[in-house]
Amino acid sequence: MSGNSIGVLFRVTTWGESHGKALGAVVDGCPPNIDLTEAAIQEELDRRRPGKGSSTSPRQEVDLVEILSGTFEGKTTGTPISLLIRNKDCDSAAYEELRNIFRPGHGDLTYEKKYGIRDHRGGGRAAGRETVARVAAGAIAKKVIARSGIEVLAYTQELGGIAVQAISLTEIGKNSLSCPDQKAADQMEKRLAQARKEGESLGGIVAILVKGCPPGLGEPVFDKIDADLAKALMSIGTVKGVEIGAGFQAARMTGSESNDPITPEGFATNHAGGILAGITNGDEITIRVACKPIPSIEKTQQTIDRLGKPATISIRGRHDVSVIPRIIAVCEAMVAICLADHLLRQQAQVGNG
Amino acid sequence: MSGNSIGVLFRVTTWGESHGKALGAVVDGCPPNIDLTEAAIQEELDRRRPGKGSSTSPRQEVDLVEILSGTFEGKTTGTPISLLIRNKDCDSAAYEELRNIFRPGHGDLTYEKKYGIRDHRGGGRAAGRETVARVAAGAIAKKVIARSGIEVLAYTQELGGIAVQAISLTEIGKNSLSCPDQKAADQMEKRLAQARKEGESLGGIVAILVKGCPPGLGEPVFDKIDADLAKALMSIGTVKGVEIGAGFQAARMTGSESNDPITPEGFATNHAGGILAGITNGDEITIRVACKPIPSIEKTQQTIDRLGKPATISIRGRHDVSVIPRIIAVCEAMVAICLADHLLRQQAQVGNG
Amino acid sequence: MSGNSIGVLFRVTTWGESHGKALGAVVDGCPPNIDLTEAAIQEELDRRRPGKGSSTSPRQEVDLVEILSGTFEGKTTGTPISLLIRNKDCDSAAYEELRNIFRPGHGDLTYEKKYGIRDHRGGGRAAGRETVARVAAGAIAKKVIARSGIEVLAYTQELGGIAVQAISLTEIGKNSLSCPDQKAADQMEKRLAQARKEGESLGGIVAILVKGCPPGLGEPVFDKIDADLAKALMSIGTVKGVEIGAGFQAARMTGSESNDPITPEGFATNHAGGILAGITNGDEITIRVACKPIPSIEKTQQTIDRLGKPATISIRGRHDVSVIPRIIAVCEAMVAICLADHLLRQQAQVGNG
Amino acid sequence: MSGNSIGVLFRVTTWGESHGKALGAVVDGCPPNIDLTEAAIQEELDRRRPGKGSSTSPRQEVDLVEILSGTFEGKTTGTPISLLIRNKDCDSAAYEELRNIFRPGHGDLTYEKKYGIRDHRGGGRAAGRETVARVAAGAIAKKVIARSGIEVLAYTQELGGIAVQAISLTEIGKNSLSCPDQKAADQMEKRLAQARKEGESLGGIVAILVKGCPPGLGEPVFDKIDADLAKALMSIGTVKGVEIGAGFQAARMTGSESNDPITPEGFATNHAGGILAGITNGDEITIRVACKPIPSIEKTQQTIDRLGKPATISIRGRHDVSVIPRIIAVCEAMVAICLADHLLRQQAQVGNG
Repeated sequence: MSGNSIGVLFRVTTWGESHGKALGAVVDGCPPNIDLTEAAIQEELDRRRPGKGSSTSPRQEVDLVEILSGTFEGKTTGTPISLLIRNKDCDSAAYEELRNIFRPGHGDLTYEKKYGIRDHRGGGRAAGRETVARVAAGAIAKKVIARSGIEVLAYTQELGGIAVQAISLTEIGKNSLSCPDQKAADQMEKRLAQARKEGESLGGIVAILVKGCPPGLGEPVFDKIDADLAKALMSIGTVKGVEIGAGFQAARMTGSESNDPITPEGFATNHAGGILAGITNGDEITIRVACKPIPSIEKTQQTIDRLGKPATISIRGRHDVSVIPRIIAVCEAMVAICLADHLLRQQAQVGNG
Repeated sequence: MSGNSIGVLFRVTTWGESHGKALGAVVDGCPPNIDLTEAAIQEELDRRRPGKGSSTSPRQEVDLVEILSGTFEGKTTGTPISLLIRNKDCDSAAYEELRNIFRPGHGDLTYEKKYGIRDHRGGGRAAGRETVARVAAGAIAKKVIARSGIEVLAYTQELGGIAVQAISLTEIGKNSLSCPDQKAADQMEKRLAQARKEGESLGGIVAILVKGCPPGLGEPVFDKIDADLAKALMSIGTVKGVEIGAGFQAARMTGSESNDPITPEGFATNHAGGILAGITNGDEITIRVACKPIPSIEKTQQTIDRLGKPATISIRGRHDVSVIPRIIAVCEAMVAICLADHLLRQQAQVGNG
Repeated sequence: MSGNSIGVLFRVTTWGESHGKALGAVVDGCPPNIDLTEAAIQEELDRRRPGKGSSTSPRQEVDLVEILSGTFEGKTTGTPISLLIRNKDCDSAAYEELRNIFRPGHGDLTYEKKYGIRDHRGGGRAAGRETVARVAAGAIAKKVIARSGIEVLAYTQELGGIAVQAISLTEIGKNSLSCPDQKAADQMEKRLAQARKEGESLGGIVAILVKGCPPGLGEPVFDKIDADLAKALMSIGTVKGVEIGAGFQAARMTGSESNDPITPEGFATNHAGGILAGITNGDEITIRVACKPIPSIEKTQQTIDRLGKPATISIRGRHDVSVIPRIIAVCEAMVAICLADHLLRQQAQVGNG
Repeated sequence: MSGNSIGVLFRVTTWGESHGKALGAVVDGCPPNIDLTEAAIQEELDRRRPGKGSSTSPRQEVDLVEILSGTFEGKTTGTPISLLIRNKDCDSAAYEELRNIFRPGHGDLTYEKKYGIRDHRGGGRAAGRETVARVAAGAIAKKVIARSGIEVLAYTQELGGIAVQAISLTEIGKNSLSCPDQKAADQMEKRLAQARKEGESLGGIVAILVKGCPPGLGEPVFDKIDADLAKALMSIGTVKGVEIGAGFQAARMTGSESNDPITPEGFATNHAGGILAGITNGDEITIRVACKPIPSIEKTQQTIDRLGKPATISIRGRHDVSVIPRIIAVCEAMVAICLADHLLRQQAQVGNG
């Protein structure tokens, strides 16, 4: 219980179900005197919204955010910031058949086993829609870390088995898949279109960069910055793996290959991904997360109902074919929240966050 | 700050430096009336000790644990359990040269940047030796989860690029590398011997299995069981990546491949790794972690000193060639601590942990 | 920072300013399958509302609560419960003069010193109106503890120097001051009318009883039940003192007077106030809190403005003459929240909350 | 569970039983580069030790503290500081008869009810001896707050019904009762001698002053500084009441009496006790705590045994007649720990702790 908050000092609590009245977040511990308007948050929310690409759902939530507290005349006051996003475009009737059946790959079964009760409509709290509150809170976190010159940037590294070959960060904003390699993006679009036709879904890999992070963030030995980043990212429903720097490739290196030589100008390589012994080293932080395919597919699947009897299911609701690219904004938000928290923690103990 | 505790209800706080007087842990929140003796903890500590294999350090700490509080007549009382392990075989003189130089791949630089002061002897708090306290606390966690029929088992899946081909769990205890494939183990030993000769070190991958875990553990949306497991494991100094179930492979699957069909007898496959929507589903939990090569190598490396001047370093202390197999017991400990905490959390809110 | 949450397992986060858009609370960790409707919460909120007695403010907020998440078909689901209360009857213009002046006895000065910015309208987050969110969350807590047979009851023990002489719990609901002694209540009403005429305000003492509390609640040594109750109650803006059982009188007793003899039928006396060594002993919990006079008074007072220059102030807004009786519902809410949390904590560690 | 830690950023975890092997504390989050030696901690511990006055126990623990981690060459390093105090002068045999009987006024009964098991020797974790760890940790907290010019000072205000009449802070150190009024101290000594002769014990009131505290500390709305101070102090076993500033007297004042007029030179009075709306206002913080008489008395008392049968008990062990003056150092420690934590919290969010 109490699992709906993250962060020690910059603390985000989220709430809300996919087809309930609303979703939202309370951000406690935000420093005072930071410019904050609904427009700035809206901008991030719009990045998470269903777009026009081949991967996204026909459900069209406007996702209008309302700031209910914690600001005064356009600035944060240091008191908790409450964010509200009403649900409007809910079509719960379409979910009525899910009341008594468990969708494979979804939380239907586990929520039922855990709580003995669940809001089956649209996946309830386990729906991807839950992340709208993360993105809203993340927009505030981004403002906090920007004061220290930190910027978070995520992009599509792989989708449906198609990996980027060349990385040009300026390309990211130019295609609907947030892909830094336009050629790869074109192939991904085709793969998405094919999957949609087949009633299938696709997984992918998101890469995250943090630029401008000062050294010294992270609280060994358990709240290391990489440990907290891993938690923050793995808490996104779709994520099945997280790696920092060289990640799983580091397991195949020798010490002399893996260690980043230190020079007066900085590190000669960055296999560490900007983190040494759980503390940022001043270099770019590099992270990759593995996203599983969206479990809601039209293809017929084998399952059981609430009585334990065998059943089949074909999910015809409005669903994305891949969490990419919508998950990009969510990954950025979680990393920003984690960094904002650690900035304040370092400032508390040592005074120079 | 305050980064040295983990867990909400089963809460472990560790302390101690590699070459300080001692290391230890305080375990708060352990249920009362559990049999607990120093011998049971010692058994786990001995698994972490430098062994006789090719990978391990000549430093020979007896690592005797003393229970200072929290038990009475051989049983836990519900009050905090304090564990003490004195450092004995310290050879700090060998580290004197490290006072003013930063070892590549180590926390020397980042501790200095973070705190403005560091205990350079043996890596201080950033040393692998810190994990002795984790293993001691983990031994208690194992007793807590055993009451619910849960068992944690880790083994070497890959070392120096050599992966196991066949998995026979009964083999694990039969070789010094905790490897479930004896043939692979033989090759790994050769690879280790070669690396030692070259003044190098090796990385590897550890696989972790959790058997007998009941469904319902995990606290969405941030304290999902996979999020907390990822944090617990990523907090181990050597770990650069964590994946659950199919992990990064899931990113290349389609929805119908990735989703585990549900049958009246259970799940037909286990790509989810025993976790759905952040809650255990009753199936085996499967995790893999990537361990980087030990950064202390004899091979000469490029670095800088505290004044920022270029320098070279060749580390000749007593070091392992790989964290495998000693890290195996540490991984098990962290998973056990995480599960013990979530068992109590589920018991608190729903009453049937 | 992050000071807007209370409770470890039954965790309440509140937000909102007196003259902002709304106030609210998020309750995380509530057990599932508890009946919960807006009407049940509304009932508690109505107890806190300005009444018809001599002590209360002319401001008339309807304080309609909306449950935005965490319930399904009238029952809690175990996910966070978000509660929203819109502000409607705000007259911020009346507060414009307070933008640049600090009211004595208020948080104006300290919020300014702490955050460097403050919402001056109606006292912002420091207003008594903040407690509406506590009462809403407390209504849920009351349902949680009622399942274990626990009931919280508070009443006016003293107001404006007039103390109750006889205690008849059945009288409490019969007068507008929640006073168990009708004769004293009559005198209190006169004292309130006089104070109002004089442009003054009054303080008082609230007594709180907890009936039906099982033994075993409380987590030594820091989260003792009396320590957590003291914090919960002292966190109410108006409270300047808390005592348990014999309280300050215990300081004047001898050991044989203070110790409650134990008999097979229970304790012969209850100077302990139902708590021994920080753990409930099964007897009634008894608490008293001292409430200071409301600082907003019409009488002219000496103060300074934001530039530090001397000034005088006479506050003519709509204010109560005493926090009693409206604070009664707030005290009950805080005690209920604290007990709900400790019930879950005991259930987690020992299994029989 | 997990009730043995206090503080969010400056976090103290204590452990240990009265007749176990040792007691201790882990202090996590202490800023680096603070001078810290065992001698400085020892000085505080010696203040808590049984003295030569009439009130104290013949048990003579040397209470030697050992710093096991977290310092390097006489300075804190920012890593957790582990403190160890071995128990030496235990006479557990004297407690054997307490295995099966519950002492009135003690935690014997409640620990048994809570955990189903207890270490009966010397009161186990519920013994006054537990506070030795608080004082050790408090010595470090005092160093942290001293950097911001904050000093904590406690003294005996009342003992056995005898209150100080005049307060001369310079007198405090001159008598064994830490009493600022030598004449009252003389009477208190007589009262103590008489109580000892009668097989009785006495309660009293401790006053605590905080000088030099900057404005701005405290985290509304739940972690107000007065709320956290109340918790910290009420968590001391002997404390039954806490009041801030005018405390219970404020309940009898009118608004114009209670409000402290603000002048360019500061507050004209200090009924607020240095705290407004849960935030320090720059004035002296004033607190009083009520201590109950020590429950261990020689006088025969009525009780029950573990089978619930009536019994009588006369406690002949080595016991103090009053917790005063030994509790003085404990009160100071708890206040210092609370302030150190809030200093860091303010520094984190606003940057000028």
